[in-house]
Amino acid sequence: MDGLSTVAVVGTGLIGGSVGLGLRRRGATVRGWDRDPERAQAALDAGALDSVAGSLEEVVTGVDAVVVAIPVGETAEVVIAALDAGAAVVTDVGSVKAPVVAAVEADRPHLAPHFVGGHPMAGSEQGGLDGADADLFSGATWVLTPTGGTDTAAFSAARALVSQLGAEVIATSPDHHDHLVAVVSHVPQLAATTLMDVAAGVGEEHATLLRLAAGGFRDMTRIAASDAEIWPDICVANRDAIVAALDDYLTALERVRSLVAGGDRPALLSILERAREARRSLPVGTPSGEALAELRVPVADRRGVLAEITTVAGELGISIADIEIAHSVEGGGGVLVLVVPLRSAAALETALQARGYHSSWTELP
Amino acid sequence: MDGLSTVAVVGTGLIGGSVGLGLRRRGATVRGWDRDPERAQAALDAGALDSVAGSLEEVVTGVDAVVVAIPVGETAEVVIAALDAGAAVVTDVGSVKAPVVAAVEADRPHLAPHFVGGHPMAGSEQGGLDGADADLFSGATWVLTPTGGTDTAAFSAARALVSQLGAEVIATSPDHHDHLVAVVSHVPQLAATTLMDVAAGVGEEHATLLRLAAGGFRDMTRIAASDAEIWPDICVANRDAIVAALDDYLTALERVRSLVAGGDRPALLSILERAREARRSLPVGTPSGEALAELRVPVADRRGVLAEITTVAGELGISIADIEIAHSVEGGGGVLVLVVPLRSAAALETALQARGYHSSWTELP
Repeated sequence: MDGLSTVAVVGTGLIGGSVGLGLRRRGATVRGWDRDPERAQAALDAGALDSVAGSLEEVVTGVDAVVVAIPVGETAEVVIAALDAGAAVVTDVGSVKAPVVAAVEADRPHLAPHFVGGHPMAGSEQGGLDGADADLFSGATWVLTPTGGTDTAAFSAARALVSQLGAEVIATSPDHHDHLVAVVSHVPQLAATTLMDVAAGVGEEHATLLRLAAGGFRDMTRIAASDAEIWPDICVANRDAIVAALDDYLTALERVRSLVAGGDRPALLSILERAREARRSLPVGTPSGEALAELRVPVADRRGVLAEITTVAGELGISIADIEIAHSVEGGGGVLVLVVPLRSAAALETALQARGYHSSWTELP
Repeated sequence: MDGLSTVAVVGTGLIGGSVGLGLRRRGATVRGWDRDPERAQAALDAGALDSVAGSLEEVVTGVDAVVVAIPVGETAEVVIAALDAGAAVVTDVGSVKAPVVAAVEADRPHLAPHFVGGHPMAGSEQGGLDGADADLFSGATWVLTPTGGTDTAAFSAARALVSQLGAEVIATSPDHHDHLVAVVSHVPQLAATTLMDVAAGVGEEHATLLRLAAGGFRDMTRIAASDAEIWPDICVANRDAIVAALDDYLTALERVRSLVAGGDRPALLSILERAREARRSLPVGTPSGEALAELRVPVADRRGVLAEITTVAGELGISIADIEIAHSVEGGGGVLVLVVPLRSAAALETALQARGYHSSWTELP
């Protein structure tokens, strides 16, 4: 299949709107429906849809695939309604997969083969249609969770839709997906939130505390500033996997606590070194055909440095694929990490050297 | 006191070298000594010292103050040697204060009033003299930990030295300091390291895992990539405070675990909202006389966006005080957060709007 020609989007917020924008740009016709007619109209006005249908039944009739893009707690019910209305292929975008897939299989065993669970690993802090972007999924990872019973043609259509949006498909089972996102997304969110909450409690009594909170603490608690509202639903939907992953984290932290209490330097060093190695090997940035290099530039946290360095890159016509400031654990200074095309790394280093910066670079795997 | 005229630096690595560079630039004479004569010579060659002394006794004689900048585990012994050699004012730069202050008070009760514990909240990922920078402490917070017995003149000299380096002094007790850094620095480091270690363990079996590790996970585990070697010593030196703060964190995480297990949406939401509020109120960037604004620009994680936005700022002559990408929890997109002078925020917003970015800004407190 080369791409879908007509797609229905149910739920026209951030994800649904971005799916509509992305597919329309790539030549598909997109019909939309939203429980809230004003939101559907807004999506039409924003160019995310070709037309707005009058009902769920109407929107799913005669399309190649239906994308259900609504909160995870309501997804199963709407997927079932779409299947009941005769949709040949239905996929969703929820952060948790096993309960949705299980509910559809339990309630509609004969229609479930036409549902393929999905989860694009992309989003925007700016929720709702305002954050919608035709490129939201470009280069992103999009998980599909077929089961043994999934219809091959339905899976093939879902895969074509994801590719059409520029995302890369990873297929895995619903349970496996839920376990993995518990480890890399749900537990980190809860760990950061809890750390921030504990520090804020201490900070209420000790005004000095937050003045000592330097870059490392800021990096680590940054995700605690994200939307709070979506998380209780995710925690309920993915309860078992989150509890299991939290238990692993708690066990590991208890072990670190006992190593600290026992003053076991070698065992602590071994964990610290293993984690450092793992963090440094974490893949960076968006996948791309082009070889990339990581350039590390130690900088004091003073004004103008960032502008100066990015302007140097701009003047040389070097596009920056990713940027991050690795703050030092204690204090303002740190290292500016730039990901640039490998072929530009040496030129950028030379230009920075001429301005007094000592950088080093390595090719990214 | 307007500033010190002659200072001795003992230990000429990253911190000692930066102290030397900073003080020399501000008109002081700096004498150095290092256990490793080659390192002292390198500091002299790098312009961080006016001269190298032949011994610890020689370097501390006749100076206004002595800065001991060596690993925390060896600090007390060298501070005592400096006091024995007749130094009138000694300060140090270790990450943990109570054990050092207690050791000096216990071993040299009559000389301890001349020692003022210190801890600059600044560093660089690039360890050693190569990372040394005259501006490393500009705008940074530098904690001093006088006790009831500290000599007023000694404290005053230490304070003058810190001001001379452009840092802001916070004075607090050694115990209080150790408790606070356990909360905002040591426990976050261990929490990030442990999270990365657990995920890496899962990732060994499930190659998919790290492909799902998006920006939020990267932010949260970034400090796990920092130098592993310094942490075992810090854990041993600040054992009691770290164990207490880890226990608070473990208790809070256990509570979150039971809320997830019990599906208690309202209680989870309340913690998530409280933490979000606290994180959003965290002070940003370096202190400054100028009012600052925070500009939030939703961006897809596509190439060139960063260069484009920072170049727009550069063309308008707007200096960027801080920059961070608040990655969305799941995926590549996110929000580029720029801290710029308040007076420039509106102009930057307008310029970005003309290029199709929807930004919003607020004045920072």
